[in-house]
Amino acid sequence: MTVELISVGTEILLGSIVNTNAAYLAEQCAGLGLSCYYQSVVGDNAERLALTLKCAMERADIVILSGGLGPTEDDLTKETAAKLCGSRLVDNEDWRKRISEFFDARGMKPTENNWKQAKVPEGAIVLDNPNGTAPGLIMEQKNVRIILLPGPPNELVPMFETSVKPYLEQLAPGAIYSQTVKICGVGESKVETEIKDLIDAQTNPTLATYAKTGEVHLRVTASAGSEKEAKKLTKPMVKELKARFGADIYTTEDDVTLEKAVEDLLLANKLTLTCAESCTGGLLSARLVNVPGSSEVFKAGLVTYSNKAKRKLLNVKKSTLQKYGAVSAKTAEEMVKGAAFISKCDVTVATTGIAGPDGGTKEKPVGLVYIACSVKGKVTVKEYHFTGSRAKVRESAVSAALTLMRSCILEYISDITFRKK
Amino acid sequence: MTVELISVGTEILLGSIVNTNAAYLAEQCAGLGLSCYYQSVVGDNAERLALTLKCAMERADIVILSGGLGPTEDDLTKETAAKLCGSRLVDNEDWRKRISEFFDARGMKPTENNWKQAKVPEGAIVLDNPNGTAPGLIMEQKNVRIILLPGPPNELVPMFETSVKPYLEQLAPGAIYSQTVKICGVGESKVETEIKDLIDAQTNPTLATYAKTGEVHLRVTASAGSEKEAKKLTKPMVKELKARFGADIYTTEDDVTLEKAVEDLLLANKLTLTCAESCTGGLLSARLVNVPGSSEVFKAGLVTYSNKAKRKLLNVKKSTLQKYGAVSAKTAEEMVKGAAFISKCDVTVATTGIAGPDGGTKEKPVGLVYIACSVKGKVTVKEYHFTGSRAKVRESAVSAALTLMRSCILEYISDITFRKK
Repeated sequence: MTVELISVGTEILLGSIVNTNAAYLAEQCAGLGLSCYYQSVVGDNAERLALTLKCAMERADIVILSGGLGPTEDDLTKETAAKLCGSRLVDNEDWRKRISEFFDARGMKPTENNWKQAKVPEGAIVLDNPNGTAPGLIMEQKNVRIILLPGPPNELVPMFETSVKPYLEQLAPGAIYSQTVKICGVGESKVETEIKDLIDAQTNPTLATYAKTGEVHLRVTASAGSEKEAKKLTKPMVKELKARFGADIYTTEDDVTLEKAVEDLLLANKLTLTCAESCTGGLLSARLVNVPGSSEVFKAGLVTYSNKAKRKLLNVKKSTLQKYGAVSAKTAEEMVKGAAFISKCDVTVATTGIAGPDGGTKEKPVGLVYIACSVKGKVTVKEYHFTGSRAKVRESAVSAALTLMRSCILEYISDITFRKK
Repeated sequence: MTVELISVGTEILLGSIVNTNAAYLAEQCAGLGLSCYYQSVVGDNAERLALTLKCAMERADIVILSGGLGPTEDDLTKETAAKLCGSRLVDNEDWRKRISEFFDARGMKPTENNWKQAKVPEGAIVLDNPNGTAPGLIMEQKNVRIILLPGPPNELVPMFETSVKPYLEQLAPGAIYSQTVKICGVGESKVETEIKDLIDAQTNPTLATYAKTGEVHLRVTASAGSEKEAKKLTKPMVKELKARFGADIYTTEDDVTLEKAVEDLLLANKLTLTCAESCTGGLLSARLVNVPGSSEVFKAGLVTYSNKAKRKLLNVKKSTLQKYGAVSAKTAEEMVKGAAFISKCDVTVATTGIAGPDGGTKEKPVGLVYIACSVKGKVTVKEYHFTGSRAKVRESAVSAALTLMRSCILEYISDITFRKK
């Protein structure tokens, strides 16, 4: 079954708001096994909305519209959909009562416009809205079902959860299961080359690649009669990917980020962490702290942006800064050692580099970054060359730091496991 | 002139990512005086993309596509657009060189896929991409211009700014001039109430509000025969807004962010800065450091996430943490004083709060944040209550910290000016 999403609202066309409703509805529909081939945005304009809706009704089994159910004259979604379906709008006594009560509770009087919200297309299924005055609507036509939802996310989301999801579940044939395989430290095209044969041969499950900064995500999706069967279909492909990418896969869980994977490793091995950042300027700490529960392992971050701060907070030697410069492997090494000495943490990581746009030289161009990681005294320093804007260089450095931390911790674990044997 | 936006990517259809590119492009196009009536999203599928693009080409003067320019086989946007326009793809020598250099710099070899990115439709205008390996493209057809941009926002945004915006500006009939008035520390609905009369009466210039985290941007846009005339038309409205919002306006420059405004203030008054962050975890430092040239004023950041770090790095008293807790006005005060003592910087700022999702209590709910700012020894502490996800609470706290810093510095300046008189 196919679904098509139409978001109605001039504020989306003007870019005043980001269309998070579409992302929410798309994810929900994908989870229900509905195929979505198109999404559209159209303004509060009857003619253009009718054109868009007509087109969607012709090619999809289900059309979900959001927005334009408000009380103002601009709000035309219900009127336009009813007209296209040849339904007339009739008063709904329940909703007239609801609107009365809603305004009474606030000591206000409904205006003429507000009563417009109690009108529904004849024969439509009326959906409850505990968070607002616009009812949701389902209009069942011969070949297509049209679902109308209010635009505010705090009304749309609960209405979808409570009323629309159960409705769609009893329509949907079978189920979809998706598994994501997340890889760090390998470039997108290298990943692509490694799985070209799998991509070419894909049927069910399908395999898709998503490039992120410093990461590549592979999504394996299967459809079957039940979720259990669909899950079973994804398994051989996931197994094959694990065989090909090995330790470069940091998780196969949707909700695990690279920073969470690193923190989980730290937690499982009872290791604590401190960051010392120069060019990344707090961004690495910020990503690590954004993981709920990070306080278990992340103890402190030192943003030593100036040379003075590097010397004072991390004991980097004046002679090192003079001889090698702030952006050097030697400085990165002293930063990471200083952070370990001061924090007494098991794992420390340090970044120093030239994020640009200025400050680059021929010997040390913009994008040059040194990252050092120390695990229980064992220090690794790596040199990187990133490209792009200041923000992009810093973002790449943060991903590289997480990837380096992960590999140093894994090495440490394998070392102690080996020694124990 | 009308513009239509097409976002290409199965990721968006699946709801894996929120379509922020469309919001960015829509806002930019509105600012250029282009009317946008439709936006669409379509997957990486040649047939459906062709159908969507054909429809857009028939009804708009300009079609902007984003996404699907990558090196993988999924990426079909360029191929599909070229086919629809009857253009063949030819090798672009500049881009072959660029790709060679890009991989050389990383000590890697391009794969067969990578060379696909050096192919461009014959006769197309090729746009530079300093942040990636996909060139942007403009294909000028008889009645429509098709603009192809890469999907990653860190490539799309700079390319739009540098190449697409100037191109669109010279197409627009007459001229458009936009001036942005950026306000911090005042809520969206308050701003809207204050300017309701101006919004209701708007013709030329128009007035639009854009809510950002902790900020509201007002955009005044006028169209006229020349840019000079258009600019003249915006002036009375901008003057009126300045009269209404006074010192809450931190800039009227498009490229000045709140963090840049704060750093400019520091620089102009020869003040240095150190941050001490708990709940914001490095995010405040990261925003400050992202401003080019920030090393002139930003000296160090201390991410004191654990109580131990607060005590050790900032001299927060054990008794304070025990008596008032880590999330308290008293702890914020000691953090900011400790940061001032240790760093010897003129201005210090400290954040401590409960970002959630866990850790909240009835007395100290999720979203409670204390922010302290010290300017030459004068300390101000404020209590805030933010809502939303962990990321949203932290983002709101960063904006509030910048707003507080700005007002404390302004107060300091006005104090010394007064004393001098």
